[in-house]
Amino acid sequence: MPDFNESKLTDEVIASFQATADPRLKYLMTELVRSLHDYVRRTDLTFEEWTQAIDVLTRTGQTCTPTRQEFILLSDVLGVSMLVDAINHREREGSTETTVLGPFYVGEHKPLPSGADISEGIDGEPLFVSCRLTDLSGAPLQGARVDVWHADDDGFYDSQKSDYATSGPSLRARFAPDAEGRVFFRTILPCSYPIPTDGPVGDLIRASGRHPMRPAHIHFLVDAPGFDPLITHVFIDGDEYLHSDVVFGVKPELIARVERRTDGVMPDGKPIDRPWHLMTYDFRLRPGSKDAPRPMMAAAE
Amino acid sequence: MPDFNESKLTDEVIASFQATADPRLKYLMTELVRSLHDYVRRTDLTFEEWTQAIDVLTRTGQTCTPTRQEFILLSDVLGVSMLVDAINHREREGSTETTVLGPFYVGEHKPLPSGADISEGIDGEPLFVSCRLTDLSGAPLQGARVDVWHADDDGFYDSQKSDYATSGPSLRARFAPDAEGRVFFRTILPCSYPIPTDGPVGDLIRASGRHPMRPAHIHFLVDAPGFDPLITHVFIDGDEYLHSDVVFGVKPELIARVERRTDGVMPDGKPIDRPWHLMTYDFRLRPGSKDAPRPMMAAAE
Repeated sequence: MPDFNESKLTDEVIASFQATADPRLKYLMTELVRSLHDYVRRTDLTFEEWTQAIDVLTRTGQTCTPTRQEFILLSDVLGVSMLVDAINHREREGSTETTVLGPFYVGEHKPLPSGADISEGIDGEPLFVSCRLTDLSGAPLQGARVDVWHADDDGFYDSQKSDYATSGPSLRARFAPDAEGRVFFRTILPCSYPIPTDGPVGDLIRASGRHPMRPAHIHFLVDAPGFDPLITHVFIDGDEYLHSDVVFGVKPELIARVERRTDGVMPDGKPIDRPWHLMTYDFRLRPGSKDAPRPMMAAAE
Repeated sequence: MPDFNESKLTDEVIASFQATADPRLKYLMTELVRSLHDYVRRTDLTFEEWTQAIDVLTRTGQTCTPTRQEFILLSDVLGVSMLVDAINHREREGSTETTVLGPFYVGEHKPLPSGADISEGIDGEPLFVSCRLTDLSGAPLQGARVDVWHADDDGFYDSQKSDYATSGPSLRARFAPDAEGRVFFRTILPCSYPIPTDGPVGDLIRASGRHPMRPAHIHFLVDAPGFDPLITHVFIDGDEYLHSDVVFGVKPELIARVERRTDGVMPDGKPIDRPWHLMTYDFRLRPGSKDAPRPMMAAAE
């Protein structure tokens, strides 16, 4: 006769997963049971706390929509997303640091010619972004593409706006580098912004006395045949939230110095009649491993 | 400058909860971060697996409705619910074993007189249930109430049926014991039944090679002034799933021998013209602690 009491329960639950066909799933479930039970025992979790946890998890799931993923946000503010990123990129070999894809990548971007302005019709301080894409030896990448996306001057991505379906993408595009591996484009200077705080994750952030801010950044997704895809952010130096990014995405190497310029000509020779900013950042990709994770494919589904 | 790399990340995330006003929440979040990060590191969790986990959690939340709680079900099949029950009832002092409330308690039940038949209009083998409610010394409880509820002959609770809103409760009621602490009622013999398997928890159960069955049982919630409320199941001896309850609810002391009887008179003197079953079970409550958990209040909200 079974006796699912406190001391035997964990073993009984683990044994119930004995017949799991997929050995990896069996391992993951076994360790999950161990971790969850350890947590409950260690914290002497009360019924009320368990009930609250059930409620938070339920509301987190029910806050998700086709354009909002509250569980990814929860994973982000608990540092789990960046940890998964870190342990899957232990072998960098000198390639650029990675970050998570984030919830605002929307899949394939519209190709634009180098030099294009992705901020058309949007107010903000002009920014000229100049990048070079190379392999680990510094040789230009052939056949590469770069997806870029960032928030506007108010901290919102296009996909967060109610008119996104009709007005289409802005502050996002895909570029192809030239033979030297160079890509440049015009946009506006992004600003720091809060994660969405009107759901359960916002409640947690407030209850914890944390601020909800992310330092200003531009997302980059670089892909080239034969190389591991690179997913990262480039952060703007001097941002007040670089030290306390609510989703723990900052790495020193990913902070770009952004120069304020007053000369009347941009790096591609075109004139400009007001002050502007210059961001320069180079990306190094490492040769592709056949089994390399391609996280954006999964996350973008 | 922060560096949220693999080795420092956990400390950075824990530090972010430093300003949490409620010390218990701060402790629970700190330990949660530790547990989650340990799990990710220990299992070398891949991006694909993390993405699948996000998807399962999201669908679990979205499967919840006012009459279905898929996250409680997930907690149940991982043994977490019974573990929370166990650690909150370490000091039994001879009182009856507890179990979880389960998802089919619907709040206050309709009071019926002792001896009533709660299975009116429902097919099944007749069952006469006879209980005694006492304190730890065996003295009858004064002013007690007993809520009972169970599944029908097909394994469904009334609240799972589409016509529940109009046809009202069946196989559930509230009774008050007599001066001797005795309660008896008529019903039908419950059968073993599967938990709902059309959601994410069902997918997990199938992928794990587990069956979805619960052994036949009747739920009891006993409450009396001055005593800790008792939430438990009484299981029917001989059920083939007693050894492998999918939610780990069985404790040997909670298994009642159910006698098959052919005499034409039930214990309260009323005649019966076909074979019937007799379940006898006595409940012992312990004096109430002021801070005792009253889980049904929270769970029934």
